[in-house]
Amino acid sequence: MDPTASATARALADTTFTSDIFTPEPLAMPGGDETVLRGGRHLFPLLPRAFAGVRRIGVIGWGSQGRAQARNLRDSLAGSDIRVTVGLRPGSASAADARAHGFTEENGTLGTMREVVAASDLVLLLIADAALAEHHTEIFAALRPGAVIGLSHGFLLAHLAETGGTLPAGHPVIAVCPKGMGDSVRRLYEQGATTEGAGINSSFAVGADPDGRAVDLALGWSVALGSPYTFRTTLESEYLSDLVGERAILLGAVHGLVEAAWQHFRLAGDDAVTAYARSCEVVTGPLARAISRVGLDGVRDGLDPAGREEFDRAYTAAYRPARALVAEIYDEVAAGVEVRGVLLAERRLAEGGMSPVGDSPMWAAAPEAHARRASGETAIDPLTAGLFVATMVAQVDEFAERGHPWSEIVNESVIEAVDSLLPYMHARDVAFMVDNCSRTARLGTRRWGPRFLAGYQQTVLPAVSRPADAALLAAFEGNPVHPALRAAGRLRPTVDISVDAGVG
Amino acid sequence: MDPTASATARALADTTFTSDIFTPEPLAMPGGDETVLRGGRHLFPLLPRAFAGVRRIGVIGWGSQGRAQARNLRDSLAGSDIRVTVGLRPGSASAADARAHGFTEENGTLGTMREVVAASDLVLLLIADAALAEHHTEIFAALRPGAVIGLSHGFLLAHLAETGGTLPAGHPVIAVCPKGMGDSVRRLYEQGATTEGAGINSSFAVGADPDGRAVDLALGWSVALGSPYTFRTTLESEYLSDLVGERAILLGAVHGLVEAAWQHFRLAGDDAVTAYARSCEVVTGPLARAISRVGLDGVRDGLDPAGREEFDRAYTAAYRPARALVAEIYDEVAAGVEVRGVLLAERRLAEGGMSPVGDSPMWAAAPEAHARRASGETAIDPLTAGLFVATMVAQVDEFAERGHPWSEIVNESVIEAVDSLLPYMHARDVAFMVDNCSRTARLGTRRWGPRFLAGYQQTVLPAVSRPADAALLAAFEGNPVHPALRAAGRLRPTVDISVDAGVG
Repeated sequence: MDPTASATARALADTTFTSDIFTPEPLAMPGGDETVLRGGRHLFPLLPRAFAGVRRIGVIGWGSQGRAQARNLRDSLAGSDIRVTVGLRPGSASAADARAHGFTEENGTLGTMREVVAASDLVLLLIADAALAEHHTEIFAALRPGAVIGLSHGFLLAHLAETGGTLPAGHPVIAVCPKGMGDSVRRLYEQGATTEGAGINSSFAVGADPDGRAVDLALGWSVALGSPYTFRTTLESEYLSDLVGERAILLGAVHGLVEAAWQHFRLAGDDAVTAYARSCEVVTGPLARAISRVGLDGVRDGLDPAGREEFDRAYTAAYRPARALVAEIYDEVAAGVEVRGVLLAERRLAEGGMSPVGDSPMWAAAPEAHARRASGETAIDPLTAGLFVATMVAQVDEFAERGHPWSEIVNESVIEAVDSLLPYMHARDVAFMVDNCSRTARLGTRRWGPRFLAGYQQTVLPAVSRPADAALLAAFEGNPVHPALRAAGRLRPTVDISVDAGVG
Repeated sequence: MDPTASATARALADTTFTSDIFTPEPLAMPGGDETVLRGGRHLFPLLPRAFAGVRRIGVIGWGSQGRAQARNLRDSLAGSDIRVTVGLRPGSASAADARAHGFTEENGTLGTMREVVAASDLVLLLIADAALAEHHTEIFAALRPGAVIGLSHGFLLAHLAETGGTLPAGHPVIAVCPKGMGDSVRRLYEQGATTEGAGINSSFAVGADPDGRAVDLALGWSVALGSPYTFRTTLESEYLSDLVGERAILLGAVHGLVEAAWQHFRLAGDDAVTAYARSCEVVTGPLARAISRVGLDGVRDGLDPAGREEFDRAYTAAYRPARALVAEIYDEVAAGVEVRGVLLAERRLAEGGMSPVGDSPMWAAAPEAHARRASGETAIDPLTAGLFVATMVAQVDEFAERGHPWSEIVNESVIEAVDSLLPYMHARDVAFMVDNCSRTARLGTRRWGPRFLAGYQQTVLPAVSRPADAALLAAFEGNPVHPALRAAGRLRPTVDISVDAGVG
């Protein structure tokens, strides 16, 4: 039996769901129909039914996800009986900002982590991974009987698996995972007030469902966050694709790629600003937008013959090494090795901060390159495009082989990059991104970004003058990711997601 | 209580030994006297006493260490009753080479792994780490009662710790670990026939000593290998320093450093060959020799004032980032994370080989740079020297803080590099080295070399124009490594170790 076939069948089964409150619909994907729920503000009146039995939602943490989700939920549930309260560790530096956004002790919507957990029917654990690993026992002990545990990331599950811990019995466990950074979860929600469909997609998963409420609770949470479309996965699948993705195409590979490409162009004779434009500007700007608009195959089709030939050679040089590296990352994440490495690093870094990645010489060219945007957008460099697309497709193919559902594959490998992270980097820069993501993402990028950098420098770029591999390019043209992306694209907003340079 | 002080005291205690057969002597090291045994061919007549109770030595494996140690032992024990037999896995590709060196079924010195283990009184397990991890249960089951288990690397112990396995009870367990590559263990032994004192130093450790014979057996083994000087450590200490060292200054950091330095010089305007000379040639040639002759402080003292100022700025920029990275590697090796990662990679690579590291553009300059040696040796580039010495001292300091004995520190951090690995790289090249070391070393270098590369590129080199840190340089000048190296140096051969470009 073809093991890939059974993985696909399992993945499909994992994506199915029904609801008596909302109206999920089929989404035709390679391999079969997946189920998705289209969101929208017109569904907000259904939220009290979805949240039946939940009077108090406790958002634990005021980090990137916490402060976005708390505000979205409060706005979506305005006018209902459901109260959203924020719980912080005593003495947390975030309390002032939470109060500034209207979550206060006075109006009963701000408290300590323990007291909020103890008073809530749905507890959203949105503190940082390492903090969750450290405090989860204490948190679980404070839960009301039958309270729902909500996560936005599968890290805790992986940590429990690695350490032999378990989730407390008798509690529904759900996850709703926005496929984008916390800031964009809030900003696009606000935009959604005027622009139909603006928002960040989310996946959901059910870890435990003792009373049959889990799916509707998760859907309600996702709709209340403003997710344009919600698809289903498993906690394990979410965790694996998320941790691997941030170490690969979302952050690690991007950082390694632009650094390697910049040096390549410089050594070939470009001045620093031109080299920056051909590498970093291209990836974060026009290439990301083109992939978003016309897909990965559309990028290649849009090149002239000479450009396409250069793309094909770069793609050929990059695909297999990138694939091997994604596979290695996947193995280590799946085996728990990466989790342990991240927690080890956390302990060591408690003493001193992480050195920033933004000091390498290429970043000195950024201001001038940014200034040149006013005179017109950089053309898509075919070499850079070939390297990037090959790396993206390598991740897509690895996830497909490992049995991830297509909705998850395209969100974690393409959409989150081109619609969320890369535009953010375009407004700020890659280094800013790396230094401002979740702790786990930053640590992962520091561990794996250099592997991509070294791979591009030592293996890929030296090989780009070799002829393209026709079979590899034929596989690219026939890759299921193209129809999958088009299907997912029909559920995305039609406007470009605007990114202002400030933080929302 | 100063935790460093107790670590030092423990380390000293671990280095002490006595013998009724050989004559160990005190070696004054920072922190106190360690014990060492000076070797030499005049001691070979004592070997039968040291090996009392051992009639058959089984060398399991014909890899780099196996084929060197089997031959050295056979030569040293010629004329005694002790037979050295080689045991290989059935169908091993190495059988022909073993026969070509006189280990044959006909003369009773070649057999299968199982039958040789079952017939030997001292079993030297010199197969690759991953193979040992896979076959050790089977090997242990074949041991004669009371047979001595010999290792040349602590990896098996770490693997057992990670997997909850144990060594079989009732067997002495000893380790003798040459501080150099297998080829040099044989070649320098042969040189030792004419050049007094030529050889590779070894450490020894005792893992189990049920009958009091362990120390003399280990010393006998080390003397028979031709070790000019043998010092004591623990299995854990050996394993940690060895695995960390090959990921840091011995291989990983060297590779990352020369690649980063080459690019730095190229981007500053040097042609490819000059950049290669200033980076790779300097490190593997004149810098290594200078450290070997005059020590790390001697390198700095030998620079002119302008060079010393450049050295100091490079040292300042590199020391703390290098130290942080060595600490991270150490934590992961100590926590078993690195072991698991290596074994995962082994499984994946069983399908396809590792891509070579030798394809990056800098290596194209190697032949021309080698050809230029005839016209005179490259001067020591102060920038390169500062980076390298800072990285070496970072490893030294980390090992000292973690409580390793000074004899081990200087061997694993300096001597093995400048007297064994770097001269070998000078004759061949760094990429050759990386692609031809033990599997574990290769995998470790692929995992960590890029971290050093990225660190030098993104953090260190951008900072070399900042003023030197006087306190850091004062700490360098007063570092205990200088007297430790001089003490160890008195036990080294006075001739340069010649390296021919072929394999011995």
